[in-house]
Amino acid sequence: MNMVTVAAVQMECRGTVKENISRAEALVRKASGEGAGIILLPELFERPYFCQERRYSFYDYAAPVMDNEAVKRFLKVTEELKIVLPVSFFEREGNQAYNSLAILDCGKLLGIYRKTHIPDDHYYQEKFYFTPGNTGFCVWDTTFGRIGAAICWDQWFPEAARIMALQGAELLLYPTAIGSEPILNTDSSAHWQRVMQGHAAANIMPVAAANRIGTERVLPSEENGNQSSELTFYGHSFIADETGEIKTEAAFGEETIIMAEFDLEGIAKARMEWGVYRDRRPEMYEGILQ
Amino acid sequence: MNMVTVAAVQMECRGTVKENISRAEALVRKASGEGAGIILLPELFERPYFCQERRYSFYDYAAPVMDNEAVKRFLKVTEELKIVLPVSFFEREGNQAYNSLAILDCGKLLGIYRKTHIPDDHYYQEKFYFTPGNTGFCVWDTTFGRIGAAICWDQWFPEAARIMALQGAELLLYPTAIGSEPILNTDSSAHWQRVMQGHAAANIMPVAAANRIGTERVLPSEENGNQSSELTFYGHSFIADETGEIKTEAAFGEETIIMAEFDLEGIAKARMEWGVYRDRRPEMYEGILQ
Repeated sequence: MNMVTVAAVQMECRGTVKENISRAEALVRKASGEGAGIILLPELFERPYFCQERRYSFYDYAAPVMDNEAVKRFLKVTEELKIVLPVSFFEREGNQAYNSLAILDCGKLLGIYRKTHIPDDHYYQEKFYFTPGNTGFCVWDTTFGRIGAAICWDQWFPEAARIMALQGAELLLYPTAIGSEPILNTDSSAHWQRVMQGHAAANIMPVAAANRIGTERVLPSEENGNQSSELTFYGHSFIADETGEIKTEAAFGEETIIMAEFDLEGIAKARMEWGVYRDRRPEMYEGILQ
Repeated sequence: MNMVTVAAVQMECRGTVKENISRAEALVRKASGEGAGIILLPELFERPYFCQERRYSFYDYAAPVMDNEAVKRFLKVTEELKIVLPVSFFEREGNQAYNSLAILDCGKLLGIYRKTHIPDDHYYQEKFYFTPGNTGFCVWDTTFGRIGAAICWDQWFPEAARIMALQGAELLLYPTAIGSEPILNTDSSAHWQRVMQGHAAANIMPVAAANRIGTERVLPSEENGNQSSELTFYGHSFIADETGEIKTEAAFGEETIIMAEFDLEGIAKARMEWGVYRDRRPEMYEGILQ
């Protein structure tokens, strides 16, 4: 058996970068203290979800990975606590910026994944900030197993989950910032969960998603084109097992940690036994590339 | 609005071919009478699930599409009732045999799909009978919308659903024969549903699955290698909406019809609005073909 405890942190992201990193750190320390080896924070947790509005001045938030405040802080924390922690951050490289994830493992930076699929919905105006990622989907051999990780909107694409699974992922992680849809006026939380439960069930591996909570308001100004809006992030962070069953889920609006323990060796055995990888027919899948 | 009512027939497949076709016809007539335009029967409903055992003599069950008893009968029935009905049958072509689906639309044969993914589990010994399909995944423009249809084990593969969706499917159909796992000793029914709920949720289109029910026993004989076994097919046929939510579900062991009505035009609008097709990045999906 190869037991690993996965935690997802659901938190509000308000105030300064320093405050958010401190609050995230306190929750990470709590999860570690309760036995978690792999801990997932929400997407872009250093700040309120700045993509709600378009402001050129927010481009200044982007920084190279080793200059990012959260990465710098959590390299120390992961070394101290002996944990694996993906850190979602706004990355600058030359004249481009990415929505990126730094994979930290016990004080080491294992690599960076850049969000492949960039949304552009009312008040989720990410195409203004982020170039679609150029890393491809990635997995990393960590202290606690081979993890695949992608970011928020990527979670809606079965291709991303499947490719990580084919690279040998044992577990999929999705830091997230999703909430209300002021124009479509829909609550997508159950839909959102079912897509990822499907990834878990089809690829026969656990999936964890950590979402933010809280209502974030934007006031009109000349710089944002006089936009007035608000988003309420719906939480509902969850961890599903290898059959897609939700093992633990956070409530709407609750700042909390959820945790689940998995036997990665037993799950790998089940993955073989079920035969879905044996029976794939890649020569019939060209249509995916259209 | 383009309203269509979809029905899934859950039935036991016992006795002769003639008896099964008659029982299926009675259920199809009932579903049509209650307003269904598209009706789905279980996989290989003409017979008990003969793939539970290996017998060379069962090769004789395979026939070209126009010689299949169910296809012949239901061409007449679909013309009379003005319905769309995929008919699952054991197809012979030259020296090969396929697990196939004939798409019948108001008395016309629109085409054939051959099952792409062939399982080979204890007592689901399909690789003994069926050559993996060579048609690729297919959609058909029917009287009641563009449908995608695949067969049983195909339902476990996100690639199949995605490719049908990319071909413009508005609705996915899966005739099925799934039940107990005498060796793995697992009840996969919820797992099975979640994989397909994931297809519905990720591709933003309804999914229907029609399964058989009943316990089917195999007695030892020289021809089957002295195999003694039984399978209990678990039913749990269901129809999910475009968010993956199950709208109607049949109970374990119940011979019944389930039905759900969808506005395919409204769903097409939702599919555009959600943006997941807009934001796909096929150039990043080469890994699917590995």
